[in-house]
Formats: sequence, C-alpha cells, structure tokens
Amino acid sequence: MRAAIILAAGQGTRMKSALPKVMHRLAGRPMIRHLLAACEGVFDRVVVVVGPGMEALEKAVAPHATVVQAERLGTGHAARMAAPLLEGFSGDVAVLYGDNPLIAPETLRRLVEARTGADLALLAMRPADPGKYGRVVQGTSGQVERIVEWADASEEERAIPLCNAGVVCAEAGRLFRWLGALRNDNRQGEFYLTDVVALAHGEGLRVRAVEAPEAELRGINSRAELAMAEAEIQQRLRLAAMEAGVTLVAPETVQFSWDTCLAPDVVVEPHVVFAPGVSVETGATLRAFSHLEDCVVRAGAVIGPYARLRPGTEVGEEAHVGNFVELKAATLGRGAKANHLSYIGDATVGARANIGAGTITCNYDGIRKHRTVIGEGAFIGSDTALVAPVRVGARALVAAGSVVTEEVPDDALAIARGRQVNKPGRGFKGKGK
Amino acid sequence: MRAAIILAAGQGTRMKSALPKVMHRLAGRPMIRHLLAACEGVFDRVVVVVGPGMEALEKAVAPHATVVQAERLGTGHAARMAAPLLEGFSGDVAVLYGDNPLIAPETLRRLVEARTGADLALLAMRPADPGKYGRVVQGTSGQVERIVEWADASEEERAIPLCNAGVVCAEAGRLFRWLGALRNDNRQGEFYLTDVVALAHGEGLRVRAVEAPEAELRGINSRAELAMAEAEIQQRLRLAAMEAGVTLVAPETVQFSWDTCLAPDVVVEPHVVFAPGVSVETGATLRAFSHLEDCVVRAGAVIGPYARLRPGTEVGEEAHVGNFVELKAATLGRGAKANHLSYIGDATVGARANIGAGTITCNYDGIRKHRTVIGEGAFIGSDTALVAPVRVGARALVAAGSVVTEEVPDDALAIARGRQVNKPGRGFKGKGK
Amino acid sequence: MRAAIILAAGQGTRMKSALPKVMHRLAGRPMIRHLLAACEGVFDRVVVVVGPGMEALEKAVAPHATVVQAERLGTGHAARMAAPLLEGFSGDVAVLYGDNPLIAPETLRRLVEARTGADLALLAMRPADPGKYGRVVQGTSGQVERIVEWADASEEERAIPLCNAGVVCAEAGRLFRWLGALRNDNRQGEFYLTDVVALAHGEGLRVRAVEAPEAELRGINSRAELAMAEAEIQQRLRLAAMEAGVTLVAPETVQFSWDTCLAPDVVVEPHVVFAPGVSVETGATLRAFSHLEDCVVRAGAVIGPYARLRPGTEVGEEAHVGNFVELKAATLGRGAKANHLSYIGDATVGARANIGAGTITCNYDGIRKHRTVIGEGAFIGSDTALVAPVRVGARALVAAGSVVTEEVPDDALAIARGRQVNKPGRGFKGKGK
Repeated sequence: MRAAIILAAGQGTRMKSALPKVMHRLAGRPMIRHLLAACEGVFDRVVVVVGPGMEALEKAVAPHATVVQAERLGTGHAARMAAPLLEGFSGDVAVLYGDNPLIAPETLRRLVEARTGADLALLAMRPADPGKYGRVVQGTSGQVERIVEWADASEEERAIPLCNAGVVCAEAGRLFRWLGALRNDNRQGEFYLTDVVALAHGEGLRVRAVEAPEAELRGINSRAELAMAEAEIQQRLRLAAMEAGVTLVAPETVQFSWDTCLAPDVVVEPHVVFAPGVSVETGATLRAFSHLEDCVVRAGAVIGPYARLRPGTEVGEEAHVGNFVELKAATLGRGAKANHLSYIGDATVGARANIGAGTITCNYDGIRKHRTVIGEGAFIGSDTALVAPVRVGARALVAAGSVVTEEVPDDALAIARGRQVNKPGRGFKGKGK
Repeated sequence: MRAAIILAAGQGTRMKSALPKVMHRLAGRPMIRHLLAACEGVFDRVVVVVGPGMEALEKAVAPHATVVQAERLGTGHAARMAAPLLEGFSGDVAVLYGDNPLIAPETLRRLVEARTGADLALLAMRPADPGKYGRVVQGTSGQVERIVEWADASEEERAIPLCNAGVVCAEAGRLFRWLGALRNDNRQGEFYLTDVVALAHGEGLRVRAVEAPEAELRGINSRAELAMAEAEIQQRLRLAAMEAGVTLVAPETVQFSWDTCLAPDVVVEPHVVFAPGVSVETGATLRAFSHLEDCVVRAGAVIGPYARLRPGTEVGEEAHVGNFVELKAATLGRGAKANHLSYIGDATVGARANIGAGTITCNYDGIRKHRTVIGEGAFIGSDTALVAPVRVGARALVAAGSVVTEEVPDDALAIARGRQVNKPGRGFKGKGK
Repeated sequence: MRAAIILAAGQGTRMKSALPKVMHRLAGRPMIRHLLAACEGVFDRVVVVVGPGMEALEKAVAPHATVVQAERLGTGHAARMAAPLLEGFSGDVAVLYGDNPLIAPETLRRLVEARTGADLALLAMRPADPGKYGRVVQGTSGQVERIVEWADASEEERAIPLCNAGVVCAEAGRLFRWLGALRNDNRQGEFYLTDVVALAHGEGLRVRAVEAPEAELRGINSRAELAMAEAEIQQRLRLAAMEAGVTLVAPETVQFSWDTCLAPDVVVEPHVVFAPGVSVETGATLRAFSHLEDCVVRAGAVIGPYARLRPGTEVGEEAHVGNFVELKAATLGRGAKANHLSYIGDATVGARANIGAGTITCNYDGIRKHRTVIGEGAFIGSDTALVAPVRVGARALVAAGSVVTEEVPDDALAIARGRQVNKPGRGFKGKGK
C-alpha cells in the first residue's frame, strides 16, 4: 500500500489572487487535478492538505480526502496534518506539493521504488540555474547525508549541481515519527519537511535521491511561472498529437486541453483553441480561429475558420461548419452544412440539410430553452429565424428572410416575410462616404 | 533645468515607408511617443528635430516644440537645429534619438545624474554582437577618451566590448559650442554628434560612460527591427501584467497596448488583442480571440470568445458579451447579456437585459448615428433589428425576428414580422448536397 | 542539359497518414511543389519517382514526368526507375528527395556547378546535432573518399562534423551505370543511392562535397518535422515581407502562403492568416484575426478585424471590410463599406456604397448561385436580406430589416418588412437573469 500527502494549503501570495494557488488552471483544469491524475496510478490513497475556507478546492479534489491546516506553520507541520487520516495506514507515504503539478507518473513510480532500496527516498534535480535551491549533499557511497539550504551553504556546497525538490517518501510510521520530531527553531519559525532528511541520516538510515528533470519539478509561485508551466504542458500535448499523426500547421498557436483527443490525419490550422472535452475523428479539418469545447467532430468534417462549437455539439461526417457560426447542443447530420454567420442552438439538423447564411435558432424565451428540428435534406434560406420549439420537415424549403414560427411539413415551402414596396426618388441622400 | 533634443528627422530608408520612421507604431502608439513618455519625467523641456514635410509627426509630438532640419547633414547638424529654441536655456541638454524608443526613464535619469560628476556623459552598451558599433575607448581612470568608429578601429579597439549608443548629455552652452565646432571632413561629408566626445576630451574635460542594456539602446532601422522592438515591449508588458496578478494563459499570443490596464485576477485566454485605452476590472475573463479598444470592462464580466469591444463601450459587472458580437459606444448594465452574433452600437442596455442572437441596432441612416435605449430586464428576441432612434422599455419583450421601428413601452410585447405561409409540396428540389 | 530525379515514392510511415508524405502541405502547397519550384530554374527536365496508387501526387507534379516504383527496394533502386524516362538524355543528373523541400535554388545551382569541377558532386551539411547521419570522409586534398554510415563508423569518424545529405549529381551515363551496379547485401537488403560515392571513388574519380545549411537539407519524416519545416518557411516569408517594407506587428502570429504578395507600407496586425493567392496593395491595413484567400486588396483599404475574404474577392481602394464579415466572389468598389456581421457573396458593390450591419446576400437557392448588384452610393440598411438575383440601384436606399426580392430602381427607397404591433402588459416575465 502506498499513500500520498499533497500539500495544497498555500494561498500563493505571489499569485496575487483570490483563488487558492492550486486551483489555477493548466490546460483547462485546476493544476491540482494534474497532480492527482499523476498520483492515481501510483498511490492507493491520497490525502490533500488544504487551507481554511478552501471549499472549492475540497470539491475539486473529491473523492480524495482533505484535511485543513488551520495555521501556517510550515511544510512539515502541513504534512503532519494528514496523520489522523492515515491512522493505521501501513506502507509507504510520499509527500508532494500541489503547486508542482508537472511531475510524471513515471517519476513518482521511480520514487516509491527507490524507497524499497532505502529508508528515505527524495526527488532531486539539476536545474539550469540552481539559484537558491537547497543542495543535496551526498557521501562517497552516493547516499544522501543532508540537505543544505542555500543561505547556510558553503561555497563548495553551493557548487553542488544537485538540488532538493522537496518531495520525500518513507514508511508511514517512520515518516510521522520524524514529522513529530521536527523543530521550528529557525529564522522563519517554521517546521520544515526537508529536515526529515537529517533526522533519517542521524538515525544511520539510508537516504537516496531520485533525479528527475527540472521541467517536472519546478514549482509554480507566480503567474509568470504558471504561464511557463502551461507552455510546458502545451508543448507536451502538441508533440503527442503530432506523434499520433495530427498535422499542426503552427503548433505554437494551438491551445490544447488536457483531454483533447484528435485522430490521425486531423489537420489543425493556426490559431485553434480546444477547451476540455473535444474529440475529433480522422480526416477532419479544423480551420483557423476555431474554438471547440465538449463536442464531437466526425470523420472528414470541416470546421471553420471562425467556427465555435459549444458543449453538446456533434458534427457529422463530411459536414461543414463555416465562419462566424456558433453551434450549441446541436447535432449536424452527415454532410449537413452551416457555413455562414449562424447560431444553431438546441437543434437537430438532418443529413445533407443546408442552413443558409444568417440563420438564427431562437431557442430561448427567457425562461426555457426549446429545440429546433430540421429534417434531412431541408434547405433553410438565408437570414431566417427559426422560433423554437419548431420543426422543419425533410426536404422542406424555407424562403430567405423568413421568421418561422410554425411547423413546416415535409416537402413544403414556407414563406414568412413582409412584402416589398419601392418608393421612387426617395433614395439615399447621405454623404455616401 | 534639463532639456532633451530628440533627433527625428530621418525618413528611415530601410523602412521603405512613406511614413516618417518615428511615426511607426509600437504597442499601439508612434515610437516617438514612447521616447517622449520616458523623457517627460526627467526633462523640463523637449525639442524634437523633424524633417521637412512631417506635419503628422509635428502634431504627434505636440505640445513639445519642433524644429525642421531642412538639409540632411548629419546628427551633429540636426542637434544644432535645436539651438534657437533653447536660446538662453541654462542647464543640461541631452541629445536622444527618436528611433531609440525603448530607453527607460531610469536610464535617462542615470545619464543626467552622471553629468553632474562629469562634463560630458554618454550612454554605452555591451551588445551580444557588437558588430560595427563604434567602440568606447576609456583611459585607466575609467574616463572616456574617445569614440572610435568601427571602420577606423584597430584590432584591439574592435575587441572592446563597450559600444557607443550615441546619446550624450552636457551643459547647454558647452554642447552648442561643440556642435558649432564639428567638422564634416569625413567620408560621408556629415557632421557627427559623436565627435563632441573628442572635443570635450581635447579640452581636458571629464567624459563618463553610463552603461545600459542593449535592449534599451538598440535602434530601429528596418521593419524587422521594428518587430523586434515590438516583441521587447510586449514582453515587458506581459511580464508586468502577470506580476500584477493577471493570468495570461498563453502570453506570447496576447497583444498589449502601452496603456492596457488589467486588474488582479483578470484572466486573459489565448489570442486576445488590446488596442489602446482598455481598462478591465478584477475577476473579468477575456476569452480567446477577443479584441478590445478604448473600453471599460467591469468586475466579473465575461467577454468573448470572438467579442469585439470598440471605443466608448462599457460592459457592466457580471455582464456577458459572447461570440461574434460587436459593441460600439454601448453601455451594458450589470448582468446584461449579448451572447451571439450581434451588433450593438450607440446603445444603452439596462441591467439584466437579454439581447438575443442576431440582434442588430440599426444606428446609422447614412448621415447621422442614432441611439438605442433598452430598459432593465428587457428581453430582445433573437434576429431582431432595432431601428434607432428607438427605445425599448423596461421588462419589455420583443418577439424574435422583429424589426422594431417604434417605441416599445415598459412591460409591453412588440411583434413586427411577416406572417408565415406554408405551401405544400413546393419544398426543396435541390441536390441536397 | 540538366535533369533532376526526385524520389517521392515513400508513404512516410512516421507521418501516420493516408496521404503520401510529399503531399503534406507547407505554406499552403504540397511540399513537393516547393522542391519542384526550386528545380524549375536549375534543371531542364524533372522526373518524379512515385509510389503505387499515388494518382493525386502524379497530378500535383504535372506537367513533370512521373514513374512508379512498384517495389520498395531502397533509394538507389528508386533512382534507377527514372532511367527509361531519361533514355538518351545527355548531361548531368541530380537525385533529390521529395521530403527535402526547403533546398534553395542557389544550393542546387552550386551543386550542378560543382559537378563541372568533379565527377560526382554531393550535398553535405554540418548539423547542430549530427546524430546518426552518415559522415562524409574526405582525403587530405578535400576530395570525398566515402560516406560512412553512423552504424559502421569508428569513434574518429563519428567525430566528423560534415554529414551526408544524400543528394548527388553526376553525368547521366555514369550515374545510371553506378545505379545498376549497386548491391543490396546489407542489413536492410536495400539498394542505397549513397553507395554510388564509393563506386565513383573506387574508379579513381573525383568526388566533391558542396556544403549547405542544415535548415535547407533537413528531411521531413514526421509531423513534428513537418511543423519545423513550416516554421522555417514562415520565418523566411516573414523576413522577406518585412524586408520589402511590410509591417508585421507580431510576425510569429502571421501565417503566410508561399505566394502571398504584400506591397510596402501594408500593415499586418497580429493573428492574420493568408491562404494562397492573396495580393495586397500599398497602404492597406489588415487588422487582427483576418483570413484572406485568393483575393485582391487595393491601396488604402482596411480589412478586419475578423474579416474573411474568400476566393474571387476584390476590395477597392479605401474600402472597408469590418468584423465578422465574409466576402466571396465579391467586388467592393472604391470607398465602399461593409463593416459588420455580413455575408456578401457573388456580389458587385458600387463605389461608396454602404452595407449595413447584418446584411446577407441570399445567393444560393440550393441549386445555383445568383448575383447581387448594388449600385454606387447605395445605402443598404442594417439587417437586410438581398435575395439574389437582385439589383439595388445607384443611390437607392433599403430600409433596415428588409427582405429585398425585387429590383430597387436608382434613387428609390425600398421597404420590405412587417409592421410593428405593441401589446401592453405582455412583456417579459422571465428570470431576467
């Protein structure tokens, strides 16, 4: 059995935010959920230590257990808060940081495996700029002897390239014993988790460092670091998509969500944004400036440019959604087209139907949403309003400029517009500029 | 008293432009205005030397004084043109370059302060690639002895990393005396400002170099260098916004203007453009592909994706502006919504009013613009045209597809559309493709 | 006489695509067409070796000759396929790779010129990371002795920075004789083109390496490499545009096509996409989020933001096309305006005409497209549908909200809308949320 304690109580002063730090989003979900996803395949139990008044965070990490750290007395104190929830737990416990969300499951696996060959395992990295990180001091055998904080380090110690990432893993009983033995007689008056290393070494136990890339272990303390982490995740997602056979014409202009699912031979033009929940089948083309969220695009469909697919939308095979078109909770049948300046909401559009430019489904009466149903092969003339609930039959034809308020039977023509009157000589007297 | 002379007479041949070089824009304003802004806190007076026929530039630098350099006889000659306007001025004078707009006020301050400890102060830099810059030759005391042009420099001199940025500062009387003593017996037949350094040194006076980062002192001579300067400014603006607590999901895709003002906890999604004059309050979300100019967005409002806010717009607290919606000179009350494909121009929309999809305010009759006023809690059905001037009362309801030409009283329902006629069997005979 | 054989038979397994590798696009055209364009000024004849079932590719390379390599027996075998088509050809023959599309014409010229001073010329490069490229082993005289594959290379050979790019050039008779003499007694059981170097050297002939930048010679084997090649081409196109006097406010956000043609003093704001066939005259401004394809923009016109110009569009001098406006096969006269949420398709709009917000040309009846003609100085009120075929006369005025189905004479006013009815007390009873 293995458990993880995730420290997530910090508000993150440097974020300058009303939102708890770990609730800031990366690739479309709170950063804590990235870390939880990494933990879920490695640990049997997860306890998240939160700060007071962070109900939204508690909800976001459910069903994982949470415990509140009421006072801010340091990382060691925070980890100790989890003890009551792990009462009687027997096995290894790792302590992780909620603002360290890029850590790979593989790295966590290496950490817990390293624990089997040592009494305490910790994560370390070799940053390009080691700066003021604590350094990992190893003996000749490679065993870690201690962590020396930068402020306390000698010149030689500062020259050590191996830096402490703060993450530790040990057997539960030992870990909580050490946490209970921490002292706060330091400048900040805090209990430091890192001090368990010295305690373990002082007991003659084996401490081992597991190295991982800096990109995984870098913490997020500011909006600039948040943006860097986002860039790192986006880079991973873009490479994975290309590796899977997706064309990204200009990868750096495409924004993915963590769960974006694109089949081989999907082409994504520049400037496309994927909010969560998008799945696109093979051969579909997502043209420039498109925005997709929680929707399915079937094989060979063409989306955009400037198409917005909102939640609950399904675009059928070979269907076309064109510029300045918004689809919401709409199903477009195979080969259907909505190519220009339209809002199609709460609607079912049959196969091969053609939705003219400027078509608006009037789906909301201010109280409820109503559905529009358009039959197969129907032709909706341009600049038409469809006042829902309403049904346009198969192969029906709606004249351009109509306001359709009643059902149009199959194969019928509907016209609903004013008659034109011309008044000679009363034309435009403006500047014509 | 301190004065600055800004040399801005050059057309900028390599720009290949009909526009004077310093009128090209950076972060939404002419580059000369960036330099003027940097000068305004440091210098009491500014004189801008312009070329003949540059009226637009003269207007752009107002109320600062301008003088025309009719002949192109070099930087020293250009600086001398300012003498009549500084007649009787007593104090220090700095000579700056209009195509050097990234210089920080702090650097200018260090320059003028260095002048108090020396007779002539100049700006110097250590470029990553010193290339063909003139080198600053210093004596053992650190005093500058002379500037040696790259063409005339020895191997050792070329190895000097400190390069001349061209900017000088000296007491007015001395400076103009030196400028008058410059000679043009060089290959280009021009009077070089840089030669004042040798004149000062020749008189046994103290010359001191003030170092500043290359990023501030690099000149702009081509569109590529213009783009690099833009990137540098954008980088500064993005970092400053993040530092202030703004989330930029993909900073490199967000275009700021020099005066963009975003409160903490504003979230800016990818691909957002800020033209000048934008102010956004806390908690507002600016979704992808939005374009804002000269407008105010109140706390908690949601803008976009694909929303365009044009000058004179104010979006109230918690209000929503959605996709393919344009607002111009429009006020949206608290909690009002205009979510889909609408043009709302010259309009006042009351709190909690709902503007349906495809609503168009017809505000222009070709001669004048007219206002549309929509009351609190009104509901404008989709695909409606509001022919201004027109007023829709509070809690009024406009049926979808209407063309509203007359006032709708409070609490009234208005319908203005043709009646529907169905003609059986006259449906769509097209290919249904 | 000079001929080129282009090897393009590979499907490109790592692309994971149903499309032949060389048909993937770069800057808006299949990569093979980039290479063909580079060849066209250097070689008199080109033969493209394709794989079986690649009809689309054969069509894409027309009128150049193609030959099918039915079996995949290696590059040497593929090149030999071209022999029948070059029967009797006398002169030099170069062998190139279809997935090597960034090679410059100048480099090809240097290759064929090098052949005149040697019996076999080949292209080589010094990659930043030489990795597993074959190394070019040169004798003391600088003559190439052989290519050693990385797998077979000694430590010293692996330290050679000069790598083989695979491209060779020799006199036709010799080249085909060597190709016929290749053996496939290697691990892959393939005939390697590279082995001709050893054959030439074995005959005591002179072999010379021509160096070119890695950026030109890097092959494209995956979608990630495709994206890198795209980035390289975009970088070239952006620099060339800026060099020609075009302002790119944020060059890295602008997507060019290979044939985009922008005059000096065109300003391109961030996030603009050029599909093929675009020509823009001086002083035009292309605002953010615009998308142009196969169209002409005349001097001083303003396009966007969010304007889409589709094929067959011509925007006249000083004309304006605004946000969420789509033009297709439309001509806008000098000074005409279509500024807001409109679809103008198959239309001719006269000079100074004003197209109101929300105007839709209803050009498609499901079977045929019809034209709309709008006269000079006409004023189309907002939210108007123009049901084509239809003509609106010069200086005519169409009332807002009209559906125009009949001709409007010059100077006439047309109204075509329902009459408004107000029903007191039947206003909005919704939540007003």
